[in-house]
Amino acid sequence: MASTMKLVLFSALMFFSFQAVVSDTPQHPLNPLTSEEIIRVRNTVQEKYPTSSNRLSFHYIGLDDPEKDIILQWESTPNTTTVPRKALAIAIINSQTHEIVIDLQKENAIILSDNIHRGNGFPTLSVAEQDNATALPLTYGPFIDSVKKRGLNLSEVVCSAFTSGWFGEAQNNRTVRVECFMNESSPNIWVRPISGLTILVDLELMTIVEYEDRGIIPVATANNTEYRLSHQKPPFGPKQHSQATHQPDGPGFQISNHSVSWANWKFHIGFDPRAGLVISLASIYDLEKHKSRRVLYKGYISELFVPYQDPTDDFYYKTFFDAGEFGFGLSTVSLVPNLDCPSNAEFLDAYVHDASGTPVPIPNAVCVFEQYGSIMWRHTETGIPNDSFVETRTEVNLIVRTIVTVGNYDNIIDWKFKTSGSIIPAIALSGILEIKGVDIKHKDEIKSDQHGTLTSLKTVRVTDGSSKRKSYWTTETETAKSENDAKIIIGNAPGELSVVNPNKKTAVGNDVGYRLIPAIPAHPLLTDDDYPQIRGAFTNFNVWVTPYNRTEKWAGGLYVDHSHGEDTLAVWTQKNRDIENKDIVLWHVTGIHHVPAQEDFPIMPLLSTAFELRPTNFFDRNPVLKTLSPKFVKWPGCPNTTTH
Amino acid sequence: MASTMKLVLFSALMFFSFQAVVSDTPQHPLNPLTSEEIIRVRNTVQEKYPTSSNRLSFHYIGLDDPEKDIILQWESTPNTTTVPRKALAIAIINSQTHEIVIDLQKENAIILSDNIHRGNGFPTLSVAEQDNATALPLTYGPFIDSVKKRGLNLSEVVCSAFTSGWFGEAQNNRTVRVECFMNESSPNIWVRPISGLTILVDLELMTIVEYEDRGIIPVATANNTEYRLSHQKPPFGPKQHSQATHQPDGPGFQISNHSVSWANWKFHIGFDPRAGLVISLASIYDLEKHKSRRVLYKGYISELFVPYQDPTDDFYYKTFFDAGEFGFGLSTVSLVPNLDCPSNAEFLDAYVHDASGTPVPIPNAVCVFEQYGSIMWRHTETGIPNDSFVETRTEVNLIVRTIVTVGNYDNIIDWKFKTSGSIIPAIALSGILEIKGVDIKHKDEIKSDQHGTLTSLKTVRVTDGSSKRKSYWTTETETAKSENDAKIIIGNAPGELSVVNPNKKTAVGNDVGYRLIPAIPAHPLLTDDDYPQIRGAFTNFNVWVTPYNRTEKWAGGLYVDHSHGEDTLAVWTQKNRDIENKDIVLWHVTGIHHVPAQEDFPIMPLLSTAFELRPTNFFDRNPVLKTLSPKFVKWPGCPNTTTH
Repeated sequence: MASTMKLVLFSALMFFSFQAVVSDTPQHPLNPLTSEEIIRVRNTVQEKYPTSSNRLSFHYIGLDDPEKDIILQWESTPNTTTVPRKALAIAIINSQTHEIVIDLQKENAIILSDNIHRGNGFPTLSVAEQDNATALPLTYGPFIDSVKKRGLNLSEVVCSAFTSGWFGEAQNNRTVRVECFMNESSPNIWVRPISGLTILVDLELMTIVEYEDRGIIPVATANNTEYRLSHQKPPFGPKQHSQATHQPDGPGFQISNHSVSWANWKFHIGFDPRAGLVISLASIYDLEKHKSRRVLYKGYISELFVPYQDPTDDFYYKTFFDAGEFGFGLSTVSLVPNLDCPSNAEFLDAYVHDASGTPVPIPNAVCVFEQYGSIMWRHTETGIPNDSFVETRTEVNLIVRTIVTVGNYDNIIDWKFKTSGSIIPAIALSGILEIKGVDIKHKDEIKSDQHGTLTSLKTVRVTDGSSKRKSYWTTETETAKSENDAKIIIGNAPGELSVVNPNKKTAVGNDVGYRLIPAIPAHPLLTDDDYPQIRGAFTNFNVWVTPYNRTEKWAGGLYVDHSHGEDTLAVWTQKNRDIENKDIVLWHVTGIHHVPAQEDFPIMPLLSTAFELRPTNFFDRNPVLKTLSPKFVKWPGCPNTTTH
Repeated sequence: MASTMKLVLFSALMFFSFQAVVSDTPQHPLNPLTSEEIIRVRNTVQEKYPTSSNRLSFHYIGLDDPEKDIILQWESTPNTTTVPRKALAIAIINSQTHEIVIDLQKENAIILSDNIHRGNGFPTLSVAEQDNATALPLTYGPFIDSVKKRGLNLSEVVCSAFTSGWFGEAQNNRTVRVECFMNESSPNIWVRPISGLTILVDLELMTIVEYEDRGIIPVATANNTEYRLSHQKPPFGPKQHSQATHQPDGPGFQISNHSVSWANWKFHIGFDPRAGLVISLASIYDLEKHKSRRVLYKGYISELFVPYQDPTDDFYYKTFFDAGEFGFGLSTVSLVPNLDCPSNAEFLDAYVHDASGTPVPIPNAVCVFEQYGSIMWRHTETGIPNDSFVETRTEVNLIVRTIVTVGNYDNIIDWKFKTSGSIIPAIALSGILEIKGVDIKHKDEIKSDQHGTLTSLKTVRVTDGSSKRKSYWTTETETAKSENDAKIIIGNAPGELSVVNPNKKTAVGNDVGYRLIPAIPAHPLLTDDDYPQIRGAFTNFNVWVTPYNRTEKWAGGLYVDHSHGEDTLAVWTQKNRDIENKDIVLWHVTGIHHVPAQEDFPIMPLLSTAFELRPTNFFDRNPVLKTLSPKFVKWPGCPNTTTH
């Protein structure tokens, strides 16, 4: 088993102002492209580049989001503000990457710009080219020989494409590593790789350009790898008793198209082929100021960096950028009602696209539900003689959930909203480990460091040339006026990070703000001169702050497949721009060191991390002071009592 | 507002062995003392020290828990193992602290030992002596003058007792500081102190031994300090919709006396006047080994250290050890059904005692309930051509909850059990801030550091003698063979801590163990030569490991009021005892830096921290692989569908 570290970058653009937020018009300017709009993009591009004479594949078709000031103006005066409706298409046309912006407002969509990307890095992979690449070994002579030599059944071989990273080459072709697995006896392919093979496919040539068989390593047994219920034998257990949730007044939230109202919150649920779920324009109603106040302009997962911790040939290259290379939207899976989300959930569908530009529906891509959330606040007063009392309020939270499955791992992404003003994004990991084939039946046979279940994650600097990896450590700095000041590792030392608006004060003069209560820091394990770490340099710190720039969306760069780390958060901030009293973006890096254990086999129980954006002198006082506990209801037929 | 830091020490004695756990006999040897047993302790002590001729007050009456090996033997063979039943009473008799052990097995209780404590430090305060001390100022001339001078109404003054700490004195009397508050117009006394006064009461003399009026500082206004629902005016909001929970098959847990069975878990709920809730003998059923396996011998909050961060006369002394000075059990409050715990909760009562040794009931001291707990594990398989599928399991968790209110703060303590083997203790903070009176209406009036809403918690070393405080910083070390090796700050650097039994291996040879996934470290803010930090030295690291010793229960010492830090975890571990391959105790320190914000006024929304004890090669594979999702049930009358 190779251990992995998942580092997730949340980007949250936060700002505070006091304009009224009005209800949504039917067409919200941040709504994702409709099926019809995706088709118009495809047709428009194909009109310019007919497929009869061009090799054309789409790697991104999404909303080209309008300028922020226009969105904010629209939010204030939706009836009198015209917002442009544009799409961005990223297509590979005759092996060149095109960025095409299309105006969707007119009946006939118009190409506004068409630029060729000439730098390093390639767009998100399409599903079709992954399918084509993974079919190649099955008809490739040397691979068939390797399979035979191992005594394996070719008809049970299943292959998968893996981005191959960057390790210092001056230039790259658009290649992927293909790894193959055994599908016989169990569908748990991920734990049964055919190890010892290097298969490199050039996606433009769509041919195997490098093949190596480094020798036979036995494929793991299929025993105990099955996890489907239909293939399990009794006894089942432990038994879990059912819980039914009933909301006699119905749910407390309303979804109108993509706009959500719940309790004192309003926000927009967007969906992007690359980012997946996007939360925008979150504002909270201030009971004392009698108006909605903006909290979050836009929040989403900007990148997910998954560097496996194993320097050997089978694994060293596995330094994935799941959002940029595979697409969090493209990899979003349908939620299973009553299981992935509770029975009181409502669901939203989404559309992504395939390589031909055809819309692909994802039914139940997002769910929204309310959940009992413990105690909101309480106090038992015993300090006043003869006048003891207790005041306690029960809390209901709102959760927005989506699940992204990239290969073996399932990422459960929850955005939790609290009436007290907090937003708590969480990411939890489940799914299956990727297993490395080693010829070892018992741990006693392990002689040197086999990159197995390590309980210490100490940095190891590789000096003997046995790997392309190097290593990592970092120290802490403090907050303030410029981008460099804001590069910090919060949580390592006493300190709190608040994002404040020095132009807005509370009644008693505190700066209006929100505080980041971070997830426990997940320290990178690579040296900062290691190639994967150059590409994933956003993990050098867990907090970054930049001045808002509409084009700085992807912490690992727009073109992250084979990127050289030239377009990253770490590079942008080298300008050390002024952030004081600016419209800023807060980037928070959170992560999970997944050191595998036997409990993760054959499928792993959830491992979670979360952080909190908590109002801190944003309100003049406790914003839920006057919130009643939900009325207590009993099952019908039982006496109904009401308490507050 | 003075900022506080709450550092909680959880002590978890973990061990792994493979004996069968049998069901409980009616009288579990770890059951708390019954009301009748408390009375027998009182009568037995009073027989030796008649109150007619002795000043006698009880400061602790609790179970003197049996030796661990006897408990384990009883657990294996309850019908043939005789377990002693003994009580420990700590009483102050004629100003001397007695530790009296009483045998409760015989009809006539017998005093087994009676030792006088002659070192530094005093027992937990009794409620009665706090009441007596806080009544003193109201009839004390100089105090009445101070109240008059301030134009305040004496009949609205309410006082409270605060332990006064230790600041280097060679010897201490048993004194408390008394602070008084205004109760007129609002019961939120904590935000309305009468500042500028020093009132020191000697508890043995029960008289004011020091009084100082340092000058008038206005008492804060009562405006907006009210939080009782009955005194709030409309509009209320935001509105929360009700949720009813129905369990058609009833709850999934059973409580027999103090023993809980739920899904694959069994454990015992104890209750101690000092520790409050105690979880013991937690074992989990292994579906593959067909037996219960021990996980946790005993888990409880050993101490809670609350050093306020304000070096001035009104606040410097506030360095509370809430468990040892006020008693977590004595300060446990009754839970409000349907509000503090959901409607599907079951409740346990508890008994503590008063200073005269009379039992005091705490109805609904602990609640136990099941809660929908997100996804247990899942995977959507898209890598196998033409054979996509999804497997997902919904999770139900068990929560054991208790709430401890010490003065202004309410501590909500949850122990969460997961069928996947994790135990997740959490502590959340609510209640009311303690406010310092300052003559400031707006933040602009603040000239120097007023210890208000600081967003940076940088250590400040006090060198000008203006306070008795000094300061803090620490570095990191690594795990292993002796107590010194195990003093670490986990979370500051890449690393994972597993507690393993090297004598027990999984089938493939990994050491059987549990891993600590820590809460985000709460770094102490004091220097290690500062007196409060000497007493609270257990916060120097967030992980400590000691060899099991039945007497080492309280990380801050048995007698913590006025303690000099001579009987602490930091002192015990100076012996640097061997911990390798021993029966060990894991101590984890977690904390909440509470930097107050206006949202915390007049009562603060919950602020939480939690950690996870997660099986790591404890099981041979995922222990919930064959757990079904709870059957889906709909509200009666709706079509009932079943899914797994």
